[in-house]
Parts: sequence; C-alpha cells; structure tokens
Amino acid sequence: MPSPRDASPQLQDAMDDMADAVNRTIERMLPETDLAEAPLYEAMRHGTLGGGKRLRPFLAMQSAFLFNVDSSRARRVAAAIEFVHCYSLIHDDLPAMDDASLRRGKPTVHKQFGEATAILAGDALLTLAFQVLGERETHEDPRVRCELIRELAMAAGGHGMVGGQMLDLIAERDDVDFDVGEISRLQRMKTGALMSFACESGAILGKGSEPHRRALRSYAHDLGLAFQVTDDILDVEADPQDTGKDTGKDEEAGKATFVSTMGKEAARARAEMLVAQAVSHLKIFEGRATMLKELAEYVLARRA
Amino acid sequence: MPSPRDASPQLQDAMDDMADAVNRTIERMLPETDLAEAPLYEAMRHGTLGGGKRLRPFLAMQSAFLFNVDSSRARRVAAAIEFVHCYSLIHDDLPAMDDASLRRGKPTVHKQFGEATAILAGDALLTLAFQVLGERETHEDPRVRCELIRELAMAAGGHGMVGGQMLDLIAERDDVDFDVGEISRLQRMKTGALMSFACESGAILGKGSEPHRRALRSYAHDLGLAFQVTDDILDVEADPQDTGKDTGKDEEAGKATFVSTMGKEAARARAEMLVAQAVSHLKIFEGRATMLKELAEYVLARRA
Repeated sequence: MPSPRDASPQLQDAMDDMADAVNRTIERMLPETDLAEAPLYEAMRHGTLGGGKRLRPFLAMQSAFLFNVDSSRARRVAAAIEFVHCYSLIHDDLPAMDDASLRRGKPTVHKQFGEATAILAGDALLTLAFQVLGERETHEDPRVRCELIRELAMAAGGHGMVGGQMLDLIAERDDVDFDVGEISRLQRMKTGALMSFACESGAILGKGSEPHRRALRSYAHDLGLAFQVTDDILDVEADPQDTGKDTGKDEEAGKATFVSTMGKEAARARAEMLVAQAVSHLKIFEGRATMLKELAEYVLARRA
Repeated sequence: MPSPRDASPQLQDAMDDMADAVNRTIERMLPETDLAEAPLYEAMRHGTLGGGKRLRPFLAMQSAFLFNVDSSRARRVAAAIEFVHCYSLIHDDLPAMDDASLRRGKPTVHKQFGEATAILAGDALLTLAFQVLGERETHEDPRVRCELIRELAMAAGGHGMVGGQMLDLIAERDDVDFDVGEISRLQRMKTGALMSFACESGAILGKGSEPHRRALRSYAHDLGLAFQVTDDILDVEADPQDTGKDTGKDEEAGKATFVSTMGKEAARARAEMLVAQAVSHLKIFEGRATMLKELAEYVLARRA
C-alpha cells in the first residue's frame, strides 16, 4: 500500500476515496453466500477484497472524470478491470506459475483455499468481468458496452496480458535471453495492455474523441513501463514488510528484468524519462488531469 | 467421436459437416504463429482442434437454423461456446483438478505443454470467447451481442459452469454426501447451463420469441441431464478405446454420480425419461427441429 510519505496528501486522499468506493462495488458484486459452492465465492472475495493499490480502478475512474462520466458507471468498469487484474494474480501465484505464498500481506488464494479452488476462482472472476460490462447498468448504449468488452478482451487475452505471462514464463528458461526490446514487449503485453485499457475506458464510456483517447493510451503506455521498471527495482531493494510480498523472487528465478538487463542506475533513469513523457501526453486535457499527473510522479517515489 | 453405428446416417452427416465448418472457423481464429509466445497458441490449438463431438456447436448451429440465422454468424457463436467448453476441459484436466492424462485420445494440454501453459491457454480461450461475441461480425445489432455476452457469462461463471465445477470438487470429499437433487443441481450448473446457452443462442441471434426461447431452454435442460446421466453410465461401462479418455475415474475418485447414487438401471430409466421429455419440448417448431430430436435420441445410443 502506498504510504502517506510517498504520495502527496491530495493524491493519497483521492486514491483512498476511490479504493473505498471500488471496494464497496466489488463487495456488492461478490456477496457472501451460504450455497454449497460458497468456497468459490470466499476465494473470489479473498482474491479481490482487502488490500491492493487499486491502481487500475484509479486510472479508470480518473479517465471517466475527464469525460464527465457518471461515477456509478465508472465504478462498474473499474471493478471489472480489477476482477481481471486479480484473477491474473491468483493464477500467476499458483505453484505451476510463480509459486507465491504471500500477496498483499495475506496468504495467496491457493495457500488459503487450495489449488483447484484458486483456479476456479480466477476463472469465475474473469467471466464476471465480462458479465458486468455486458449489463445495461454499465452504459445504456450497447455499442459502448460492446466496445468495452472487445477492448478488455484484447487487453487481457493472448495478444495482451495472457500472452505477456506466456512470454514471462519463456523468459525464465535458462536457454532464453531476452534483450531490452523483448522485455519491453513482454511488459507492454503483461501489464501495459490492461493499464492502457483502464486509462482509455473512461473515454470509451464518455464517447471521447480519438485525440483524447490516443493521449490516454500514450500516457498509459509510458506509465505502465515506468511502473514495471520501478517494480523490478523494488524487487531487488524493497523491504517485504513494505510490499507485503516476497522480494528477490525475480533474481532467484533467473528472470530477465529491466534491472538484470540494464542495471539499477540505468533502470532508474529510464523510469524518470518515461514518467516525464507520460506527463507530457496529458497536456491535451489543459490542466484537468492533475491526479493522473501526480500518479505518474508518485511511481518514482513509491516504496511498495 | 460418435460412430456411424450409433447415430442415424442423417444425424451423422449433419454433425460431421457442422464439425468441419466449426473447425475451420476455430482454425481461422487461432492461426499458427512464429511469435515468441507461440507455445500459448499451440496449446490453445491442441485444446480446441482435432477431435471432440462438438455437441455444443451443433446445438448452437441447429438453433440458429430454426430462426434462419446467417450461418457465418452462427459459426462464430458456436466457436465461442466451444472455446468456453474447451477451456473448462483444459483446466478440469489439470493435476490440481481431475489430473487426467488423456482427452480425445491425445495427451491433455498440461501433459503436452506443461501446467503453466495449460492454465494460460484456458484463460486465453475464455477471454477469446467474449472477444469473438463482442465483434461486429457476430451480429450488426450491439444489443444482440451484449445479450449473447451476458448470457454466456452467466452460463459459464460462478452461477453456472464454474460453480458446478466447485460443487463437483466438494462432492468428491469423503465427508460430503450429495443426494440426487444436489447432483442434479451440480450437473445443471456444470454442463447444463452452457448447453442451455448453446440451444438458446440461435434464438438470441435470430431475435426469436420468448416461447421459442423457453422451449429451447427446456429441451437443453432435459438433454443436458440425459447427457450427464449417460456419461456417468459410460464412465463405468465404456471401453477407453471408444471414449478416448480414462474410464472408471469417477468411481476411483469416490465421486457422487447418478450411477453411484441411484444404480445403473435406474440411471438408464431416468435418461430415457429425460430424452422423451426433451423431444416433447420441440413440438413448437412444428417438425422443423428434426436434428435436435435425433440428437436427443442419439444420447441414449452413444457409446462414447
């Protein structure tokens, strides 16, 4: 979780308020149940509620704000995006993948509920994301709902996040040596595509112009890479008490990261350049995108 | 694969033609690639192409035929449904779930490509299903596309297929004893919901009336249960050479099935009753639903 020392009080408040609102939305969409299949829902709740920076929902909500979108709609899209993000974490943490035991300072879903339930909980969350976007409450224009669904699917599937995770597995192999360009593509797919969708989703909901949409995609592109570069830096230097997850895992796994490829200093310089570039794309919003600007700057300061 | 000895020549031809058409559609949607993430696509192709009865696509195509839907649209919906079915098989076969080594006479996806890739291939197929339904080529009316997406999500998610798989895991536990009512609910969720969506999908594409849609749902309900009951019977008496998968697995796992709960003879009688009921729902189509009728009758004759 970002600490008040890292983010400005204004950004911190905005992120906290938004996280509360999105948590309430998620809570409503995943009520507790006493049906026989209750463990599935408990696992879905464990994997989505209680912790997490809610970075993607924040991006979606801020994007929606720029186009004066009703916040109840934006919250639904934000929740759908978070479902996709959380499902990917649940599957990524599985023994066959990263084999992680801690996430957000709590046992991972498979540690708490078993592997089979974790696989199913991820599957159900991914499915629920599309269900939420398909429902009328998300937007009265079905054209908008279909565009959200298509764009989310492209960001999350084989050409996006899942394809990036596949590349990540391949990059771990001893006989594979990715260069900086290949790692950038990997990260663009693995984390960039969903962030980009989050940034653009408000513009889709608000039927924004193509130049506005392009600006948000470019911002997301640079922010996403900056985020990943700083993640790699944090993996080698952060305190597990701050991040709430195991650190040094990448190095241990022999994973190609920005740090292992270009060194820590060059990685830091790259992150700073990316953040400056991200902020420059926001000019088109004439000073209204203050939170997105502050968020980009926070990426350099964060310790978790 | 159904053998010509079991199905009528007319049904066999119709199923073979449809399977070829759907296979070509799937093949086009999952082209081979030489990108670095190629193993993901190979695993997706392995899990979807080459074998399988294509029962759900057949139901979707026959349903579309009743409403004079353009077959290129129906094939897209049929492919999306098959992607969901195949992803569920890939995840179901994982060591943490059913731990199956054979499927359709070939190694399961995780046996061939490893567990991590199998998990990701399933995730990517589920995502692709929603992408396909969200695309304009599926129907020019976005309202229809949204309805397909919502209905598929409800059939496939926690209230449908995935919830049923969760119940299936729970039913395997030694301290749990499901009665016939609970097994019926399990099967309705695990296999019935997606079959029901397949049967109704043509009516959604063709904007069919509510009585027609209800008739198809009722048909699907009875057919799905009949199919499951006969599946349980085949699991205890079929030749693995016919089914292309391990048999006796349910008994070995101590799984509650219709056979273990009511005995083989009563299970057989139940299947016959369900098929008669399924056929009676088709009356509303005034003799046009001959293939659906023959399919229901084939369920009793099949040996695989």
